[in-house]
Amino acid sequence: MTSTTQTTTTTAEELDALAQAAAAAAPVWRGADAATRASWLRAAADALDAHIDELVAIADDETRLGETRLRGEVARTTGQLRLFATVVEEGSYLELTVDDADPSATPPRPELRRTLTGVGPVAVFSASNFPFAFSVAGGDTASALAAGNPVIVKAHSGHPRLSERTAAIVAAALADAGAPEGSLALVEGREAGNALVQHPVIQAAGFTGSLGGGRALFDLATGRPDPIPFYGELGSLNPVVITAAAVATRGEALAQGLVGSFTLGVGQFCTKPGVVFVPEGAGFEELVAGFATGVGGGPLLTDRITEAFPSGIEHLEADPSVNVVAHGLPAEAGAAQPVVLSTDAASVAARPSTLLEECFGPVTLLVRYGSAEELQAALEVVPGSLTATLHSEPGDDVASVLALLERRAGRVLFAGWPTGVAVTWSQHHGGPWPATTSLHTSVGATAIRRFLRPVTYQDAPEALLPEVLRDPALSRLPHRRNGVLQLP
Amino acid sequence: MTSTTQTTTTTAEELDALAQAAAAAAPVWRGADAATRASWLRAAADALDAHIDELVAIADDETRLGETRLRGEVARTTGQLRLFATVVEEGSYLELTVDDADPSATPPRPELRRTLTGVGPVAVFSASNFPFAFSVAGGDTASALAAGNPVIVKAHSGHPRLSERTAAIVAAALADAGAPEGSLALVEGREAGNALVQHPVIQAAGFTGSLGGGRALFDLATGRPDPIPFYGELGSLNPVVITAAAVATRGEALAQGLVGSFTLGVGQFCTKPGVVFVPEGAGFEELVAGFATGVGGGPLLTDRITEAFPSGIEHLEADPSVNVVAHGLPAEAGAAQPVVLSTDAASVAARPSTLLEECFGPVTLLVRYGSAEELQAALEVVPGSLTATLHSEPGDDVASVLALLERRAGRVLFAGWPTGVAVTWSQHHGGPWPATTSLHTSVGATAIRRFLRPVTYQDAPEALLPEVLRDPALSRLPHRRNGVLQLP
Repeated sequence: MTSTTQTTTTTAEELDALAQAAAAAAPVWRGADAATRASWLRAAADALDAHIDELVAIADDETRLGETRLRGEVARTTGQLRLFATVVEEGSYLELTVDDADPSATPPRPELRRTLTGVGPVAVFSASNFPFAFSVAGGDTASALAAGNPVIVKAHSGHPRLSERTAAIVAAALADAGAPEGSLALVEGREAGNALVQHPVIQAAGFTGSLGGGRALFDLATGRPDPIPFYGELGSLNPVVITAAAVATRGEALAQGLVGSFTLGVGQFCTKPGVVFVPEGAGFEELVAGFATGVGGGPLLTDRITEAFPSGIEHLEADPSVNVVAHGLPAEAGAAQPVVLSTDAASVAARPSTLLEECFGPVTLLVRYGSAEELQAALEVVPGSLTATLHSEPGDDVASVLALLERRAGRVLFAGWPTGVAVTWSQHHGGPWPATTSLHTSVGATAIRRFLRPVTYQDAPEALLPEVLRDPALSRLPHRRNGVLQLP
Repeated sequence: MTSTTQTTTTTAEELDALAQAAAAAAPVWRGADAATRASWLRAAADALDAHIDELVAIADDETRLGETRLRGEVARTTGQLRLFATVVEEGSYLELTVDDADPSATPPRPELRRTLTGVGPVAVFSASNFPFAFSVAGGDTASALAAGNPVIVKAHSGHPRLSERTAAIVAAALADAGAPEGSLALVEGREAGNALVQHPVIQAAGFTGSLGGGRALFDLATGRPDPIPFYGELGSLNPVVITAAAVATRGEALAQGLVGSFTLGVGQFCTKPGVVFVPEGAGFEELVAGFATGVGGGPLLTDRITEAFPSGIEHLEADPSVNVVAHGLPAEAGAAQPVVLSTDAASVAARPSTLLEECFGPVTLLVRYGSAEELQAALEVVPGSLTATLHSEPGDDVASVLALLERRAGRVLFAGWPTGVAVTWSQHHGGPWPATTSLHTSVGATAIRRFLRPVTYQDAPEALLPEVLRDPALSRLPHRRNGVLQLP
């Protein structure tokens, strides 16, 4: 089957009504105490778990990602909601900070108490490739709700029925748990998405998708009369560097791991290793070919991705330096066949815009380097990425390569492959443009900070302070007082 | 004397050379350990202190702000540099976070270690009204250097000689202390400023100035092929709300305080109370008039501000609702005479774009309100501000007013006046557009976070980790491990 054509479009009047409902819900979310807000997040997670069979069936029908992957993705999604419930309860995210008054200072210093609070209603643009974890109830939504903000999601046209059903289930669960009307809403259609990011009620936006679509929305968000932060994840090549010593020590395992990673999810992860720097003459291409010829492809997510894949390959193959290393197993009609291409570092350095364009789907480009200088010159033109991977051995001198990779990516791996993204406190899923539009992240506990703003209270009577800034609450929460961090 | 006309202009070639030097210095700043980076910041502060007589003389000549104010501002500036040295040594700003590997998880979880690191060279646009504290070596520069980034400052045309001399003194002090060449540079001229924010080497920008100038630079920064964060502070009305009970209890003190605050620094602070909501019929206008008639004005900072002041007043007075409450003492030719105007809440709600435009200089607008509803309706149209002040008494029901003020400003005061900004850990100097362009702040310890980006290391051999992420360093620094905050 082909991807469903979207038929529903949210009108401007409908969007405005949803925005006003979100605006009305915002003070309730902001004002909800930690236990309440955490209970709402857990209610959303429980409801998704309770409807997993129904949701996975719709998702598989619309995305062709398969039941195993989709069940795992629901678990990740509910895990994210529950992680953020913990983050809210733990309280560090509030960055509570108190400076006591100092009348003896010159000039005399007032009392200052600082907390973070929700920015207001957030727009979330969902992704095609993660119909649960980066969609209606995904990481952007979970972190925005956790920060105390209602959310309006722009559904992805690749899975409209799933979006509607997920939104209905989560909205009902939130209402049953006592959250206000307007906590979570859905809009559909490209124009509604453009209007959403420009709506005066919306105070921030999260986006996962293509460079073109993301840039257009970024420009709308920053071009507003009152610009808002736009947290977009727009594309990533995820460079891998393999040293000669690593090939010599564990070439076969590396080749097998690479093939598994670039074909995982039919090559449609934003952390797919798209360009792999390999030592010339170490025989790594042959090792990769050995594994790649046995690997299967599959149907891609949408018609657009299905059409773009062969033309992306053709575009690469048109470069005189590019050779085919291997094809995977022949694919059924309309499905993508894995392919490994190769070129050399000098060509990459000379023609980065041709050779370093992200191509969604099961393809990776091996880049032979003959010297450290060649490798360095090619790495310098690799655009910002979510991840960079270095496979080296203890004897290798990798200092200068590592210094470059740290500047090019937000996560640097030294084992394994980038396609798994653990959702934890220390995860970072971001990187220099075009990986993301901002310094911060859409995965892991710190995603919450994108949807918070500071407010400092000067010389406030205790009765007028937010509860979390009064001394009794401070004694139960991590905070800084007069410059010193204090734990409960 | 009038403000100096700027004669020096940095050429594109000169800017490029400075940018390349900054790019070369960036890894040294990023890599410097806490003690070293702190020593560089303190060396800069010590050098400013050592040259205070010379610098204050130049500053007074160029800005007419007076020696007392300027000496105080140098102390604030060196205090900021020393505060950031402490912030660097304390180490929380790195947000060190470790999640240990969990091979039993599904899927198995790798080890992740996260730190923040400098973004790269930062552009700083200095302000006319704080020739030290928001200029060459001001808060943006101090926080950018503290984060491990070289800085290129765009000098303000209102104090070119002071900018050059400050830059020379600080650059020499940094060099003497062992910091690399390219740590701090200066560019001059509007075109150089526009080119600076678009230069590929520059990774973030800090700005303090006008809405028009800030918006233009914001658009350049976000319009780049690779957009960068632009942290601008663009203007602020700083609303004040006074209740009838407060007037009854301490009306005279409030009137005196207000007059002192709106005329402080000849009304040229970004936190000047520009609009004051006062209860109808409580006699507060008369109290203000009593103090205002005795207060003097003075020369304004630049020719542009001098010309804009009377036309801003005329613009307000042209509104039929506006009356003159009082004039201050007559001013000398070319200087500004303080003035207090008044209007009513209904007119503000009806014509916000006329009545709520920021006017730099010693003027404030009293807005009479007859009811809570009138006050609420007028507050709803007040644009985002750096501060909001509420003078009330314990019996007042201020919940809904306070809820509005918290949404409209980043600092809410309950005593005193907004024109003092303490530089501490819990300060926040920011607010919704147009107060600032971002969620974060240019004053106080958290200003550092604007110039940092996260990097997470997955399964890194200890020898390849940054020193701060290795276990021995973690035991000496605040960090989070497996979700639990830990203090040294």
